[in-house]
Amino acid sequence: MSEIRVTVWNEYRHEKKDEKVAQVYPRGIHGQIAAFLEAEPDITVRTATLDEPEHGLTEKVLADTDVLVWWGHMAHQEVRDEIVDRVQRRVLEGMGLIVLHSAHFSKIFRRLMGTNCSLKWREIGERERLWVVDPGHPIAEGLGEYFEIPHTEMYGEFFDIPKPDALVFISWFQGGEVFRSGCAYHRGKGKVFYFRPGHETLPIYYQKEVQRVIINAVRWAAPVAGPYTDLQNCPRVDPLEKVSIS
Amino acid sequence: MSEIRVTVWNEYRHEKKDEKVAQVYPRGIHGQIAAFLEAEPDITVRTATLDEPEHGLTEKVLADTDVLVWWGHMAHQEVRDEIVDRVQRRVLEGMGLIVLHSAHFSKIFRRLMGTNCSLKWREIGERERLWVVDPGHPIAEGLGEYFEIPHTEMYGEFFDIPKPDALVFISWFQGGEVFRSGCAYHRGKGKVFYFRPGHETLPIYYQKEVQRVIINAVRWAAPVAGPYTDLQNCPRVDPLEKVSIS
Amino acid sequence: MSEIRVTVWNEYRHEKKDEKVAQVYPRGIHGQIAAFLEAEPDITVRTATLDEPEHGLTEKVLADTDVLVWWGHMAHQEVRDEIVDRVQRRVLEGMGLIVLHSAHFSKIFRRLMGTNCSLKWREIGERERLWVVDPGHPIAEGLGEYFEIPHTEMYGEFFDIPKPDALVFISWFQGGEVFRSGCAYHRGKGKVFYFRPGHETLPIYYQKEVQRVIINAVRWAAPVAGPYTDLQNCPRVDPLEKVSIS
Amino acid sequence: MSEIRVTVWNEYRHEKKDEKVAQVYPRGIHGQIAAFLEAEPDITVRTATLDEPEHGLTEKVLADTDVLVWWGHMAHQEVRDEIVDRVQRRVLEGMGLIVLHSAHFSKIFRRLMGTNCSLKWREIGERERLWVVDPGHPIAEGLGEYFEIPHTEMYGEFFDIPKPDALVFISWFQGGEVFRSGCAYHRGKGKVFYFRPGHETLPIYYQKEVQRVIINAVRWAAPVAGPYTDLQNCPRVDPLEKVSIS
Repeated sequence: MSEIRVTVWNEYRHEKKDEKVAQVYPRGIHGQIAAFLEAEPDITVRTATLDEPEHGLTEKVLADTDVLVWWGHMAHQEVRDEIVDRVQRRVLEGMGLIVLHSAHFSKIFRRLMGTNCSLKWREIGERERLWVVDPGHPIAEGLGEYFEIPHTEMYGEFFDIPKPDALVFISWFQGGEVFRSGCAYHRGKGKVFYFRPGHETLPIYYQKEVQRVIINAVRWAAPVAGPYTDLQNCPRVDPLEKVSIS
Repeated sequence: MSEIRVTVWNEYRHEKKDEKVAQVYPRGIHGQIAAFLEAEPDITVRTATLDEPEHGLTEKVLADTDVLVWWGHMAHQEVRDEIVDRVQRRVLEGMGLIVLHSAHFSKIFRRLMGTNCSLKWREIGERERLWVVDPGHPIAEGLGEYFEIPHTEMYGEFFDIPKPDALVFISWFQGGEVFRSGCAYHRGKGKVFYFRPGHETLPIYYQKEVQRVIINAVRWAAPVAGPYTDLQNCPRVDPLEKVSIS
Repeated sequence: MSEIRVTVWNEYRHEKKDEKVAQVYPRGIHGQIAAFLEAEPDITVRTATLDEPEHGLTEKVLADTDVLVWWGHMAHQEVRDEIVDRVQRRVLEGMGLIVLHSAHFSKIFRRLMGTNCSLKWREIGERERLWVVDPGHPIAEGLGEYFEIPHTEMYGEFFDIPKPDALVFISWFQGGEVFRSGCAYHRGKGKVFYFRPGHETLPIYYQKEVQRVIINAVRWAAPVAGPYTDLQNCPRVDPLEKVSIS
Repeated sequence: MSEIRVTVWNEYRHEKKDEKVAQVYPRGIHGQIAAFLEAEPDITVRTATLDEPEHGLTEKVLADTDVLVWWGHMAHQEVRDEIVDRVQRRVLEGMGLIVLHSAHFSKIFRRLMGTNCSLKWREIGERERLWVVDPGHPIAEGLGEYFEIPHTEMYGEFFDIPKPDALVFISWFQGGEVFRSGCAYHRGKGKVFYFRPGHETLPIYYQKEVQRVIINAVRWAAPVAGPYTDLQNCPRVDPLEKVSIS
């Protein structure tokens, strides 16, 4: 069991501006996610936030990160493009990326997907039920056939994303919508997992099943020691076989 | 059989600078592609090139385009980002996009894929054989189990693209490489097809099988009159069912 | 617009045994499906049923069929294995197959999928809402972003099928479940589409949106004139290139 | 690192009938595969062969198997259908299955795929080069961007299989063909990996890269402790939400 080095990134604005949010997440959303991740024996965690220099995502930090967890909501536009470039490059080189909830509209997720990543939403605290539709996927480990979130923000289709390489969860909502809530992608040498649950004013990251999924996703997204460290250029190569042109 | 309005876009620089290219494609690469497309009864064609105002891709032109064919090579960086934004938006709204050969490294293809789209290459005029690996796909219509290009530039794996939604062709090269040469994607409401063959100094767009594939791809990529005309925003929606929160 | 020759196959037992079913479908379920299909200018229809010789699916009938529509429920086990073999062979050769509702548990669908094709179910006449999750797919043509079936039998996940090559619809049910309701597959040279709606005692095949989907699916599944007419054997082949073994 | 219990199944006929094969694989092909697998600290191995009672695949053996490796060639038809049923059921319940080389035409692989699994072949001892086309996939761990097999039997497209859930390798052959050589599938709760290399008279299972792939595939295919132990039936279920029918 090799160590997985996780960086949890959070915009960290709601918590500082809104007392209600601060009460739910006194350590910040990143602090809560870091807490349950670092309780795992194979995971070490650091955090980074928007208002740190380089948003806390220096070349050094990213070089030392196996899996990056990303939460953002109100300040997507403040993330600098050069940092988005840097994160994208690291993902394509092999770093895992776990994109949570409202980060569907983050620059980095939209960049990696190539689509709008738009969706429908509603906040009335309705019930959500996440159904497992790929029960052999490692991200479903330890779960039952579904789990519920008692009070949630609704996200509804059409969710403008590329077809997932694996679709792990589909959500049901009381108000009548469905949503592809757990979407796994291979991109370059890296892996990306979008997971819908989470909200700044609801204690969703304290729920055991949600934590289980994020822990599983971190393990699934950890880099593989495979080929190709530089995919940025197009090298000219010599033939591997003798070629005679007629 | 409804009419499909195609715009063939070409960088159109090689032809103007290099006499050898001009001899192979006296009408420009776009002119040759337009010629075989407009011989089809259901296709009407216009062309557009880099050096025209707005690269020939005004809002009006794109609004009147069902499928855009894209060829570029030496001047990818000169394509203005606002035009790339515009084309991306139209693809996600439903316009088809056929990306040819060296346009793997165009801004628009990299934008829509979210990856580097890098590959290996070599120019020694070796032989390529394209094998059909999805024989029921409409883009394979009218082909045999493979076809050959007698003299070609080699493109080799790893090709840094998302897993295709359908993989139609795999190429074999004399020098020892393989390549995913026909890659189909759904993105938003639109469709994208990457097709490898083509080169400025080789008469590849005069070859019947290559023309057959591009014609098939245009028909496959034509828009479907389905739902969702605006995917750019995330609307708040009312519940479709009566919800009581407990 | 070339003609598509459709055969609608129905088990045709419920209608003969149960007056309530006969009232909803006086011509049989096959008769009703045939009726709306043959109103289309490019589709010609014949029907076939379980109790005919060879279940109405002789070699001749199948050879003359471009797309086979399949409805069965109570008598899956009475379908003879040699007819299942024959239909499977024709699908792999290029014939389209549209599998409706309770035919998820038909021998032919299970054969082509390789999985159990099991699911959960309930009959209380609840509401279903089918959301389009691939709006550029030809099977979604002419639809809005969702459509409802006012009273339906529920089918719930986990639906034990291979990951669809394209997932077109996801259903929401009042009772709390979701379901992958429109699943498209390429198999051999042929295409298979599973579509959930339909029931013997509910007038679902009279609903316009349901008819629209089945018509679209027939067109999508029609054979492509591509390579490979015999896929049953593994031929030994000579090299296409000169090989020197060292 | 939890233990993975592997059963290596071999038809074991060539080795007994053909001295040349016995010289290459004196312990049988299963013996050689077992040998390199059991050198791994997390893998324990048993073997089973066609001529044992129940082909060595009793209910007990399968219940104690996490991953089954399958090699067969000349006696596919002698595998009894009830054993095929049993293996299929266990795969759908979660057991991994690694299908090697000529086992593309085994009953169990064809059953799980639902297609012919036919291909082209030739035995002249030509060179094969396997290119990694999904470098972040765990099955590619420890490999370079390609590896070669100096003398091999050729397998060529069209390979009549469903589109892989992940395509890890594409082979290049001297004689001019390509082949999808590493194909990963989720089926039910289980995982299936088809890997092309291997032959009874060539020492392919002594090659390090080939061993690396099989070891990686075993780890990837090991069961996940997720939901659903019985997928064979379609249970009627009560609603999870209060439903009022109007």
